[in-house]
Parts: sequence; C-alpha cells; structure tokens
Amino acid sequence: MDLRTPKGTHDYGPRECYLLNRFLRAVTEVFETHGAACIDTPTFELRELLCNKYGDDAKLIFDLADQGGDICSLRYDLTVSFARFLARHRVQRLKRFQIGKVFRRDQPSVSKGRLREFVQCDLDIAGAYMDMVADAEAICIMAECLDRVGHRYRIRISSRMVLNAVMECCGVGRDSFAAVCSAIDKMDKLPWVDVAAELRTKGLGDGQIAALERYVCVSGGSEVLDGLRSGELYLCSDGKKGIDDLALLFKYLGIYGVDDRVVVDLSLARGLDYYTGVIFEAALVDFGDIGSVAGGGRYDNLVSTVLGKKSGWSVPCVGFSLGVTRILSVLLREEGQRATETEVFVGSSGGLLLEERMGVLSRLWRAGVAAETFCTRKYSFASLMEHVRRTGIPFFLLVGEREIAENSFRLMHGEDRAQQMHGDLDTIVSFIKSCRAGQRQSAGR
Amino acid sequence: MDLRTPKGTHDYGPRECYLLNRFLRAVTEVFETHGAACIDTPTFELRELLCNKYGDDAKLIFDLADQGGDICSLRYDLTVSFARFLARHRVQRLKRFQIGKVFRRDQPSVSKGRLREFVQCDLDIAGAYMDMVADAEAICIMAECLDRVGHRYRIRISSRMVLNAVMECCGVGRDSFAAVCSAIDKMDKLPWVDVAAELRTKGLGDGQIAALERYVCVSGGSEVLDGLRSGELYLCSDGKKGIDDLALLFKYLGIYGVDDRVVVDLSLARGLDYYTGVIFEAALVDFGDIGSVAGGGRYDNLVSTVLGKKSGWSVPCVGFSLGVTRILSVLLREEGQRATETEVFVGSSGGLLLEERMGVLSRLWRAGVAAETFCTRKYSFASLMEHVRRTGIPFFLLVGEREIAENSFRLMHGEDRAQQMHGDLDTIVSFIKSCRAGQRQSAGR
Repeated sequence: MDLRTPKGTHDYGPRECYLLNRFLRAVTEVFETHGAACIDTPTFELRELLCNKYGDDAKLIFDLADQGGDICSLRYDLTVSFARFLARHRVQRLKRFQIGKVFRRDQPSVSKGRLREFVQCDLDIAGAYMDMVADAEAICIMAECLDRVGHRYRIRISSRMVLNAVMECCGVGRDSFAAVCSAIDKMDKLPWVDVAAELRTKGLGDGQIAALERYVCVSGGSEVLDGLRSGELYLCSDGKKGIDDLALLFKYLGIYGVDDRVVVDLSLARGLDYYTGVIFEAALVDFGDIGSVAGGGRYDNLVSTVLGKKSGWSVPCVGFSLGVTRILSVLLREEGQRATETEVFVGSSGGLLLEERMGVLSRLWRAGVAAETFCTRKYSFASLMEHVRRTGIPFFLLVGEREIAENSFRLMHGEDRAQQMHGDLDTIVSFIKSCRAGQRQSAGR
Repeated sequence: MDLRTPKGTHDYGPRECYLLNRFLRAVTEVFETHGAACIDTPTFELRELLCNKYGDDAKLIFDLADQGGDICSLRYDLTVSFARFLARHRVQRLKRFQIGKVFRRDQPSVSKGRLREFVQCDLDIAGAYMDMVADAEAICIMAECLDRVGHRYRIRISSRMVLNAVMECCGVGRDSFAAVCSAIDKMDKLPWVDVAAELRTKGLGDGQIAALERYVCVSGGSEVLDGLRSGELYLCSDGKKGIDDLALLFKYLGIYGVDDRVVVDLSLARGLDYYTGVIFEAALVDFGDIGSVAGGGRYDNLVSTVLGKKSGWSVPCVGFSLGVTRILSVLLREEGQRATETEVFVGSSGGLLLEERMGVLSRLWRAGVAAETFCTRKYSFASLMEHVRRTGIPFFLLVGEREIAENSFRLMHGEDRAQQMHGDLDTIVSFIKSCRAGQRQSAGR
C-alpha cells in the first residue's frame, strides 16, 4: 500500500508539533491579551462563496467531489470565511482570531515551507472605528506575535490608496493595475532592471517605468512620509488620504512602542484583490530565504461583496495572517530535541516493580507532574538513562523495594542526571515544582 | 449570495470557541502530564488508504474532486491516519495525541451533536508492552479527560475476545458477527424484546437469542469477572484470555484510582471493524440523550493491515477518541456568557483621550494583563459599563485628564463593578494579578 501523504501535504511528527503547539499557545496568549475572541468556521465552504475572491489564484482551490447535495470547496484562506461569518450572523464589530488549516493546489516546495495544506493563524478587527486605531492595533498584535518567534523582523507598510495615486501619477490604467502590482511586488527578490523588463513586457513605456521607479523605491521610516507630503502623490485625493493615514498610523505605532520595526515601503503591493487601505508584510531579517512570515491589510468591502452589493450592509475590516508553517521551519532549525513535556521518568531498581511504579506514577500525575515509565518486561538501567538524556527529560526517579519500604525515593537531576536528592514523594514533587518555577522565572515567563 | 455553511457543518462563535478551547487546553494538559507526544497528519489522505477500513460506513467518506494528481478523500477518523503514520515512519512505540477535524457524510442531527464535520481528540498508545498496562493507562487518561468536563460519567468495558467467545458459545458464525454486534450494541437505547426481534430478522433462532441474552445482560463491577471465570465462556481460549485480561485491567485501574467509574458490560460491542481486544465507551450519567462522549479499544492488526499483510511488521495499539463536539454541547448548557479572556476594560472620563488610553493599554498588555478599550468617537459611560457587565469583564479602569496628570487611576471591580481602588498603573497591575491568583487558587488550579 502507498503510505505517503498526498502531494504537498506533510506528517508533522512529535518534535514539529511540540514546537508548533508551543508557538500557537504563545500566539493565542497574545490574542487573548488583546481581548480577541476565537471563532471557528467549517473546513469547506459552498463553492460559490469562494468564486471571484482570489483573482487568478481561483484555479488553486481544492474542490470536493459532487456526491449529491451541496457543491463545496476546501477553504483557501480564513479571511473570506470570516467575511461570510460576519455577514451571516450580522456581526458589526468583532476582534477575532482563528487558527486552522487552509488548502491551495499550488506547486509545493517543502524547502521553502510552501505546502498545499498549511496552518494559518489570523487576527482581524471588524468594525467602523476612528481612523487607523484598529490598523495600529492589528500591526501591534502582529509584532507581539513575531516577538514570540525570537528573531529580528521587519514590517514593511504601504497603502493601496497610495498605490492608486502612484498608478494615477504614472498614467497606468485600472486594467493594468494587477499586472503592475505583481511586477513591483517582486522588487524584494529581483533587481530593478529585471522588474523594469517585466513592466516593459506588460506594455509600459520608458517614461512610465522611470516614474514608477521613482515612487516604488521610496522606503524608510516616518520621515519618508514628510517627503511624500510635499510631492505630487499628495495632490490626488487617494494619495493625500493614504499618506495622512500612514502618518497617523506611525504615530499610534509609536505609542504602542513598535514603530522601530516598521518601514514605509511603496514597493509592497500584496497579491490579494480585496485590500482597500493599509497593507503590511513582515519578514525575518536573518531568514530572508523563506519569504514573508506574516502579512495583511485593510479590506473594507469584502463583507459587502459577500453579501451582494445591494444590501447596504458593510463592515470595514483590518487584519493579518501568520504563516505558521514557515515560522515552524525556522523554529526547527534551532537547538533542542524535546518532543514532550515529560518532567520525570520513573525507573526501577532491583526488580520490575510494575505495580509499585504505577502507584508512584498515579501520585505524580495527580500532583500535576508530567511523568512516564517503561512497560516492557526487559529493561536495563543504562538504556533507560540513555532515553532520559536523549529526550531531555530533566528528572529520573528510582523506585526500588527499599525505597518503597522506607518511603524515601532517589531523584536524579541536573546535567547528565548526576545530582541526587532523596525524599518522600511529597518532598520530591515540591522539589520538581520549585525547579519548574525557577526555570519559568529565568525564561521570563 | 447563500451565506449558510454546508449541510452538517457549523460556525462556532466566540462563546462556543471559548468553552471548546478551554476544554481542549485542559485535555492537552492531561495528555502532556502522561508524557504523550502530539502529531498532526493531513486533513485528506490517499483514497485507497481509507478503503476497507470502515465496513458499511465507507459510504460516508467525503471525496475530493479529481483535479489531476492524487485521488484523495477527507479523513473519516484520526485512527487510520495514525496507523499509516506508524507504518510509514516505521515507529514501533509512541504514546501520541492528535486533535483535529474529521468528516462523515452522515445524516446530521445538530440537536444530538452529530455533524458532518466535527472535532476529534485522540490518544493512542502504540507498542508491544506487558498485558493491559497500556490499556489501563489509556482508560486512566480518558477518565482524567472526562474529569475536566465536570459531570458524572460511567465507562463501560468489554472485550472483543469475550465477544468472540459469546458468539462461539451461542453458535453464531463469523459471517453474522457484525450484524449481531450491531443489534446488541443498541441495548443501551432499546428494550431487550426489540433487540431480540432484530436478532430474529438476522436469522438467529430462539435458542441462540436466549443464550445471547444470558451473556449480554452481564454487567457490573469486577465481581462479574469472578462469575464469568466459573462459566462456559472461560472454557474457550478467546474467552479465557479476554476474561483474564479484563481482571488484570481492573486491578491496574484500581492502582490508578479510576475503577469506581468503570463497569464490565458485555452488551458493549462498538461499531468499528478493527478492534481486537479490550473495548470501552463512556457516557455522561446526567446527559444520556447525547450518547457516548468517548470510546476506544485495542486494535492490534490495523498497522499491519495498512502495510499489507506480508510485511511481517506489526504494531499493537490501544487508544480512544473524545467526542469533543458532543462534550461542547453539554458545556454550552451551563452558566456564563464569557467569550474572551479580557480582564480590564479601559474607559475614559471627561473626554475621548484616545492616545492616553492607548498608552495605558500598551502598559497593561506588556504586563500580561488582557485589556481592551473603545475606539469609536461617540461613547457613554453607561453603555461602556453595560458592556463590561454583560460580557463579564471583571475590571473597569477609568482614564481622565486628572488621573493622567496625577498618575493615579480609578479601578472599579467586584460585583457590578461597585468597589473602587486608586493607584498608579503598577499598583493596579499588581492588584489585578493578585485577584487572578486568588481566583485560580479557589478554582483549585
């Protein structure tokens, strides 16, 4: 039998899941600290919902077979489902997160962390609020999530409105907008000459290309916005609004203390059709090869599009997705082989003592101490100790007949489990918990 | 546009997800306390893997459309994927848990918590160990998970080997095994006369039915096993092994302190084909209408079946699934409207003071205090306080110009937020954290 997983999918083993779950717990904590609520939508949606939402990428949608009943497809992202959720339940305000698998029939590249099934982790803020307040909080939350990755990152910010103004000033028509965006979006991977060549194949003249270059090379801190305010872009209405928005956004990001990681970069375009305002994208400075690890933006019209334009109901939204699978590929490059939370391995000395070990385990579990033992008839102290060292279990507890009789056990701990202490189980549990608390404190948790 | 979710699927809103996530966190903690590792397999598998694993229920499998490439189906449970994982990666020992959606094209019944997409939460122990050690730990872990639901439950236990012996003693052939199992499995819902009628339609004679009744009505504590040891079942080899196994299992469950919730019940049959040894199922005593909320058993041949019989490779396994969606339907009947972890709502007094509130929020977030504020231009103290009370946010922090100037804020707390304290932000954070610690202590965590 063919035992592989379908093309572009992957089995995540214990160590991968250990790191993934630890990261997702940290991220969930960030979301909850910001008062976000969780929702969960189905893995597949009615196919018609997904039509006309992803432009050219619609061909990447996985369809379910027609087995009678609803015609469905696997979700392509969590955003369109969120918009449907808001429309269906008539929700006008919601700060929500959702973590789940999404599916894209892309050409997979395992080394780049691009798979056909991957975990997305989204935070979005729905509701009509004062300008840039929700946008600033979304970016602040994204930054706090990236802080948990433990590597330097940079967030590039632009605005679809500024991009509209750039196109207007360069004489690029609405019908070329998507093609030109796609070309300039490659500027972080290609030199400008290559981008310019692509623009030429898309029908732009040398004058237009030169004008575009002048704008899309604009990149830097908030001082860049002062420059833009005295330029041509500020003269058209989209440009003025977009630049003023970005300036206000920078001010709020300063209050939240995350402005040092953010740059304005007019070459950022983002692929998806539905963005209408601020757009942003983050990459890890030392892991440029894996591409962006988070990105999002404002999409004020998606809910009304989902509802149908005549409804008059509209819910402005801003939010982001974390590319959890890509982040995991970075976490996996780090040290450490731990794959479980086990704190204590219960071994035996001078006999199998199975039931005695079960009794000790039961008391440890009840005290909230993660513990395991061996359940084979054959064993050797050396191989058990080897297991403990290899898997990084910090404590080794020995159960022998004398220990049971005297109610005093031997706990080996520290480097190579070479240190020893003795005591009854209550004393040992207290010792383990105090070590745990010490570790948490030194890890700053 | 059609905004509903596909038939048999459901949008989980904030309160549902709040309860679901809290339960899944508790359950994950139980798994981790037992040293279990997490794995994650794809949402869909190659279709051929799922063939011939589910008997009649194969018709309930969701297929993906053939868009070129692999022919795939959505997973029906997590167990077959686990067996494939073990076979593919040649793993011989693993105590693993997995939490994920599974898919069945069943007739949905929302009121009974039966949906076409639902969360399963599985723990399985793979490996050749001493008799009943892994079985006892699996049942112990299942009991600890059910402890977190907070309602009385009962675990019924039987054994496929004892069931084989029952069939042998009643003269039921192997080809009627599945049909007879399916009939007697209904004994917890139907009176015996109805079950007997069904058995008659399946070709059993009155003598066989009377003999079956004598066995399948056997139910009770471990004393029941003593009775079986002196009866006819114990004379055939499957019966002897099955009864001895159950007796040893009860002994181990006694060491783990969970034997008081367990009964032997020979009417338990369980639907799936792949079980080979002990089988067990749990129901909530006060919520009989929702059916079983957890169940599992030993399946020693599934991995070798997945691999193909000639391989000679075999991994015995035992494990269970929690019916998380059904458990959620019980949790939802309880009190409480909380849907987020928000601890503090930051209001303003005497002006909008947006940037001042953002600064306060930023300090609360950084201190690990979950906080939110309002971001509309219009607001009223009364409506903010109403929001705080309705959503159960325990603290209301007032930011006014005088508070900022004097660096002393007003925190309202307690019932109806009628109590007050004053202090700088550090003092307020300490106060909130001490209340939080007090609550945890009184909840016994």
